Amino acid sequence: MEHTTTTSVQEGRDVLAASGKQIDQWMANSIDWSHFPPHLTEAARYSVLGGGKRLRPALVIQCCNAVGGDTDAALASAAALEFVHCFSLVHDDLPALDNDELRRGQPTLHVHAGEAMAILAGDLMLAMAFGFLADAPCEPTVRTLLVGELARGTSDMVAGQVYDTLGGLPEGLTPIDQVRLVHLNKTGALIKAACRMGAMCGGADAESLDSVTRYGDAMGLMFQVVDDLLDITQSAQHVGKATGKDAANGKRTYPGVLGEAACRDEVARLRTEAVMAVSNLGDAADPLVGLANLMAIRTQ
Amino acid sequence: MEHTTTTSVQEGRDVLAASGKQIDQWMANSIDWSHFPPHLTEAARYSVLGGGKRLRPALVIQCCNAVGGDTDAALASAAALEFVHCFSLVHDDLPALDNDELRRGQPTLHVHAGEAMAILAGDLMLAMAFGFLADAPCEPTVRTLLVGELARGTSDMVAGQVYDTLGGLPEGLTPIDQVRLVHLNKTGALIKAACRMGAMCGGADAESLDSVTRYGDAMGLMFQVVDDLLDITQSAQHVGKATGKDAANGKRTYPGVLGEAACRDEVARLRTEAVMAVSNLGDAADPLVGLANLMAIRTQ
Repeated sequence: MEHTTTTSVQEGRDVLAASGKQIDQWMANSIDWSHFPPHLTEAARYSVLGGGKRLRPALVIQCCNAVGGDTDAALASAAALEFVHCFSLVHDDLPALDNDELRRGQPTLHVHAGEAMAILAGDLMLAMAFGFLADAPCEPTVRTLLVGELARGTSDMVAGQVYDTLGGLPEGLTPIDQVRLVHLNKTGALIKAACRMGAMCGGADAESLDSVTRYGDAMGLMFQVVDDLLDITQSAQHVGKATGKDAANGKRTYPGVLGEAACRDEVARLRTEAVMAVSNLGDAADPLVGLANLMAIRTQ
Repeated sequence: MEHTTTTSVQEGRDVLAASGKQIDQWMANSIDWSHFPPHLTEAARYSVLGGGKRLRPALVIQCCNAVGGDTDAALASAAALEFVHCFSLVHDDLPALDNDELRRGQPTLHVHAGEAMAILAGDLMLAMAFGFLADAPCEPTVRTLLVGELARGTSDMVAGQVYDTLGGLPEGLTPIDQVRLVHLNKTGALIKAACRMGAMCGGADAESLDSVTRYGDAMGLMFQVVDDLLDITQSAQHVGKATGKDAANGKRTYPGVLGEAACRDEVARLRTEAVMAVSNLGDAADPLVGLANLMAIRTQ
């Protein structure tokens, strides 16, 4: 049932590249920036069109396809997810939060355009994301579901940022449960939302939506475990953002709690969990399998 | 056709108080904060439940009523508007923007809870606002319109903040047109959105929606002209936020461009424009007339 990992990693790369091209095209052609101040537009475009893996849009598109939907039905939602993701990076990078100066190999937005502009451009991106959903090419009932899903995913992501930056975790959790709670919110919530929104755009039934949801849960957690590993094993130049920061900031991380070897086992386990979750969707889920395999071995 | 101003100012006060009570009750009872970190919840509640005129929720509710809708249909949208308004105040007050320490007579959120929390709590409020609309008690088609309207209003408001804080106005505008463009976006966009969303919740036909839109345009501009006047004539203690800041920051304002006397004429003109815009709605628009009269003479 499952592809060999080697074949499928390449499929993941192809899927990511193809989806990335589709979403970049949509964002370049479909967004009307004309009524915004030019420097606000420039700041938002700098952040949104400045590269990135485009994983979340790829998940929206591929989850839509996996349940039988057309890519066209998913593009507005895919753009919405990428806008929310980029907004969250811009605000997370601010001096009052992570104070990062490098993102995707470029100066972060507040370094490029100033702190006030970074705050406001982030706000704009979040509002625009919901605007895309209001015009999404699907039934109004589905649009409403998409809005609810994105609002929940964004709120949970913000909660995760708070846990990560300002603490406040519930008492009595073990260290590993603390890390998991932070990451389920900070990274997992939007990745799960991407998967679910894609499935909704594709008209998924309850069973398919459940499969895709479990896939999204596993992918979100795996993404962050890998991210934590990259933070301790890779150079900033390679990853495109500062590394070694988690330890320096005393943040609890997967490798810090489990050790590096157990983290690699956890990645393998989560990859399998993701792949198994969508096995009932058959060949249509091959691109999702490819993305899971690719994300398990990514080095950036 | 039009009430005497004296009677109707009292009606405006009553309307504002009654709507304020309804929306505070909805926000206290209907919002589930349980899955957020406690200090994030505290920060957002500090900002949202910390008083304020509640003008925007009142406009949502009264515009809904004015076109024949029930208040219950408008409350989720009213809360959404107030959340977006409060988020915008929190971010606008940040050190990188207006650097204000006083808001509604209390320390601003970043003074109260720190800058990181203020940024993140603002983000949360904006996301939650759209979540309210996803669950609003109306037809999915209407919900979709509400989301589009709020996204547009928020985006335009952010554009206004950029003009106000970072410049970038189109070249060739006269000083008064510059001020107007700033304020139509910064303050007017959300006030207009409040009016239109209320009318949509109430099932307005195209003609009523147009009336309410013109009312909202006039109210938004009037609100800001009065705000500019208060900035030069009132104490911070009375208004509940720093005053005299516009001149100190070299910002273009209505009084700065037109002079104080002409500003008062402009307020009178806009009040009449607002009142006339909804005259075709008959007695049902009396509360809107009251709000216009009250807002024209407010001192806080």
